Amino acid sequence: MEFSLIDRIRQLTAQHRDDVRLGIGDDAALLTVPPGQELAVAIDTMVAGVHFPVDTAAADVGWKALAVNLSDLAAMGATPAWALLALSMPDADTAFVDGFAQGFAQLAQSYRLALVGGDTTRGALTISVAVHGFVPPGKALTRAGAQAGDAVLVTGTLGDAAAGLQCVQRNHHRDDAQARYLVERLNRPTPRIAAGLALRGHASACIDVSDGLLADLGHICVSSRVGADIEAALLPRSSALLDLFDDSTSREFALSGGDDYELCFTVPPQYVAAVQADLAKLGCGATRIGRIVQGEGVRVRDGEGHWLESARQGWDHFQA
Amino acid sequence: MEFSLIDRIRQLTAQHRDDVRLGIGDDAALLTVPPGQELAVAIDTMVAGVHFPVDTAAADVGWKALAVNLSDLAAMGATPAWALLALSMPDADTAFVDGFAQGFAQLAQSYRLALVGGDTTRGALTISVAVHGFVPPGKALTRAGAQAGDAVLVTGTLGDAAAGLQCVQRNHHRDDAQARYLVERLNRPTPRIAAGLALRGHASACIDVSDGLLADLGHICVSSRVGADIEAALLPRSSALLDLFDDSTSREFALSGGDDYELCFTVPPQYVAAVQADLAKLGCGATRIGRIVQGEGVRVRDGEGHWLESARQGWDHFQA
Repeated sequence: MEFSLIDRIRQLTAQHRDDVRLGIGDDAALLTVPPGQELAVAIDTMVAGVHFPVDTAAADVGWKALAVNLSDLAAMGATPAWALLALSMPDADTAFVDGFAQGFAQLAQSYRLALVGGDTTRGALTISVAVHGFVPPGKALTRAGAQAGDAVLVTGTLGDAAAGLQCVQRNHHRDDAQARYLVERLNRPTPRIAAGLALRGHASACIDVSDGLLADLGHICVSSRVGADIEAALLPRSSALLDLFDDSTSREFALSGGDDYELCFTVPPQYVAAVQADLAKLGCGATRIGRIVQGEGVRVRDGEGHWLESARQGWDHFQA
Repeated sequence: MEFSLIDRIRQLTAQHRDDVRLGIGDDAALLTVPPGQELAVAIDTMVAGVHFPVDTAAADVGWKALAVNLSDLAAMGATPAWALLALSMPDADTAFVDGFAQGFAQLAQSYRLALVGGDTTRGALTISVAVHGFVPPGKALTRAGAQAGDAVLVTGTLGDAAAGLQCVQRNHHRDDAQARYLVERLNRPTPRIAAGLALRGHASACIDVSDGLLADLGHICVSSRVGADIEAALLPRSSALLDLFDDSTSREFALSGGDDYELCFTVPPQYVAAVQADLAKLGCGATRIGRIVQGEGVRVRDGEGHWLESARQGWDHFQA
């Protein structure tokens, strides 16, 4: 059964790449990294009921399991190439596997990403995906390069996924188009691969917003040994978020909600306009939300210039 | 908490390698594959209560989670380099994490393998490890090269891990040195990395025995479009196995028990002695147990020349 499940996924995710010498079906895949490229690798796990609601559609689970990993490659400025999948599920549910594989494949095809290895086991519904991408040596974006004076920007809008989760959990406006938009943002995040590539050579630091802006920008601050001052009034929020939630709630979602998978990055101030123009050509908005300062930690100022206490620093799966 | 757990594992598994440009701590690791080498990658998952008894010591779980993956690299004839770890556990149990990391690190150090990425999440105890190794182009061992007339060999002894599992589950001879040996074989399998490297250029096909000899040799047969005839009397069995279990049970363990992580491989008959001599220099026994034939499937003959029915074709985690 183990073998037929992974065969099914393989069929639904078939993708030819010349750099895959041997794909799924042996003890290991055999792969060729293009000459002069570094390999960027990351692994992320999603557990039903922890990282996504238990009644999430199988296709959405498959999409998201890959998306959250591709988002890590986006944050490094890497081009996606290959993935490995480890899927644990309570029983051999072919309908779930088919749906999962369809969602996974739909996103994989956008990037010509090949699934090169997989393992299905019996257990609680848990999905680990490892992704591999390429980046020219020395060109990767990291968390450790932000300098005092740099501008802090984020792509897209923040807080939508946290709002979508509330819509699902509280059955809040579920039939409403705006709620559907927010739930779609939760279930089908779009990894900012093209934006990450465009930021190479321009951003001084970059991270994807998976645990919430405060937590993730906090990682940039620790790695870069700097602080960051954020203007709450500048946080980009979607009209759906603003229409369905009050200002204070939507601000909290934008600051601390996880799962948006936008990029948060820093740029020397003189390059902000050029970077925004580059990203706009890709259809990707980028909003300046604050600046890097000497010191440590992330501070948030409201529209009247008051510093906000922010107790929640983002998701902690062990305390959630 | 997520971050501190993986930091703890990182501290306990620190391993410097020049090919790791950026290790754990950013969105992805940055790695360099040596020029002229292919990358061999595999992923495997272990679930508590499915792949190991729930009361297995944390250090044994850490060792085994890496060992079963390194065994896949051994079966390809690859040299281990890097690993990614995804660990789900019900709560942030620091003692478990420390024990797990110690067992993992102990094995990793033998191969100078670096842990380059990790993710810890809340969930049922589930461990996925992805491993990466190097192999010269065209030199990897695969399942697809066995030809009629080739000899079938296995390293070490078979059936020990299945016997060890019985000792644990039935509390069978637990204080006995032989039982401890069998349980050690279950909990601390030794991946046959050196043997895999020595088999490059000699073995026509290779696989590791994870699901049981019949199942795994069956995979070689399918991939190579051949059959295999095995002599039950030739199956290598340890004295511990033979002393603690009757002949029929120990034979069944050797044929169908999983988790031994020995290599099963095929060699043209004229090279058998030379290959056995090469492996003996590494302290690795290799026993000829049968031969590849035209046709399909694996058949087993007993000492009197009768063909045995073999209903169980190895582990199936969804039906176990």
